[in-house]
Amino acid sequence: MNRKLFSGSYWFFEDTEKLDEPSSPVWGLLPQEELYSGKSPYQDIEVFQSEGYGRVLALDGLVQLSTEHEFVYHEMLTHPAILYHNDPKKVLIIGGGDGGSLREIAKHPVEEILLVEIDQQVIEVSKKHLPSLSQGAFEDPRLTVINDDAANLIKEYQGEFDMIISDCTDAFGASEALWSAPFYKLVLEALGEGGVACFQTGYFKETFARKGRREIKRTFPFSLVYRAYVGCFPFDECSFTVASKTIDFGTVGYAEIAERYGRLNIRTYYYSPEIHFASLVIPKCYEEKCY
Amino acid sequence: MNRKLFSGSYWFFEDTEKLDEPSSPVWGLLPQEELYSGKSPYQDIEVFQSEGYGRVLALDGLVQLSTEHEFVYHEMLTHPAILYHNDPKKVLIIGGGDGGSLREIAKHPVEEILLVEIDQQVIEVSKKHLPSLSQGAFEDPRLTVINDDAANLIKEYQGEFDMIISDCTDAFGASEALWSAPFYKLVLEALGEGGVACFQTGYFKETFARKGRREIKRTFPFSLVYRAYVGCFPFDECSFTVASKTIDFGTVGYAEIAERYGRLNIRTYYYSPEIHFASLVIPKCYEEKCY
Repeated sequence: MNRKLFSGSYWFFEDTEKLDEPSSPVWGLLPQEELYSGKSPYQDIEVFQSEGYGRVLALDGLVQLSTEHEFVYHEMLTHPAILYHNDPKKVLIIGGGDGGSLREIAKHPVEEILLVEIDQQVIEVSKKHLPSLSQGAFEDPRLTVINDDAANLIKEYQGEFDMIISDCTDAFGASEALWSAPFYKLVLEALGEGGVACFQTGYFKETFARKGRREIKRTFPFSLVYRAYVGCFPFDECSFTVASKTIDFGTVGYAEIAERYGRLNIRTYYYSPEIHFASLVIPKCYEEKCY
Repeated sequence: MNRKLFSGSYWFFEDTEKLDEPSSPVWGLLPQEELYSGKSPYQDIEVFQSEGYGRVLALDGLVQLSTEHEFVYHEMLTHPAILYHNDPKKVLIIGGGDGGSLREIAKHPVEEILLVEIDQQVIEVSKKHLPSLSQGAFEDPRLTVINDDAANLIKEYQGEFDMIISDCTDAFGASEALWSAPFYKLVLEALGEGGVACFQTGYFKETFARKGRREIKRTFPFSLVYRAYVGCFPFDECSFTVASKTIDFGTVGYAEIAERYGRLNIRTYYYSPEIHFASLVIPKCYEEKCY
């Protein structure tokens, strides 16, 4: 746990110096209560109650979520892919040990969910200190959790999943392999016909994220980048990339998505069919940062 | 000039403590070169070259713009209003001493531009140290600059302007009166028939900004809130509010805006007719923060 004295208090400052390109602004949140600090075989894990952002999970000193803002990220990572597929039965979540993506997917009538999180400790800490993330979904009978490296485990599956959600950390440490062309090819092969994958693909401006989006675009017959501002990742809009072997996303219009969404009868706070299509509009000045 | 020692360097940290509700995160930029620091009768003014964000203008310790990001803000504050009006001849800019809004408006075939900036020193400093903002537009023969308090000066005009752009600072110090119901009423009265006003209305989440948007909605027969993420204001999406006596914005569709935009033959980097309509989609979770 690394706290910095600033204006008379000890602050959490995000530790971006380990990234290839450190972000040029620095930012910090004021912890009100330290809830957890530990070291797993993979990373430093901490959870604290902050002023203004709710509870915060940081891995290796980088903010992964705040309870005030995570719903934007998790809704946007899951619902567009679900609605493009229309009827996923078997879902793979890569990473996502905090349970937020699981919570959103569990709202849907899927039949099987496999969650592959390399770090068991992230799951345990999140269940205990971030219960609003999974909201009990780790007890869902449709769920199987495997603690393994998704980059290896995925090789065992061919044409297996209707939906694969890559909810991994940014491209450093254990996640680096999950941002590579060989991994995207394995995801493509693990998808069944009509299967849809969705990847968190970082800030628009980041080099590793641009490379990731470029490789996804090269690997999949169809892919589409969309965007959302997520308050706990303040220094750019976040990009997400849906990808598929057989679904030409451009042919699925508002009426179809709105009909599917209405039929599901689920509750979302950021996502809506209107937001879905608004998020697909990428500003001209971002386009050069897309790939 | 207020610099804080952090990780071995002296940083600019935004000074949000003067606001009614200080932002809970703190953030800082690393100055590479100090370009100006002075005190006008109205505020502290500083300009520095930063790492990553280009040049930064701060007033009373609050970031007003960075040269890397200001085009998003200035394009979104001006072009939607211009395109809703379709043919503004006489334009009033309130504040905007940095020249960014002026630059965007000067791209259009307007006939007269009146810029009312209370602080002459902001104009002088911006012309010298932020030339990419005005790009020479302060020399435009259509322009008249008045150094006065817009809250007073606007009383002299009745039915005068086709377009009024409120490009003021947030609701503290000299700008406080520009966020009040009486001022919005004066703006309404200063607009001609068919006139359009556009206001920068701050972060969605801020109380003064919500109050401002609520008062605009009450004052004008028609108003519309839209949004954009602006990198130098990282802790929420920015809101903008267009308002009019006679134009029902909801009846002006994409085809009309795209046709008008195409006819203008101007160059924009963030704004496009597609972005225009995407920006009008407000996430459900923001709606309660709108008014």
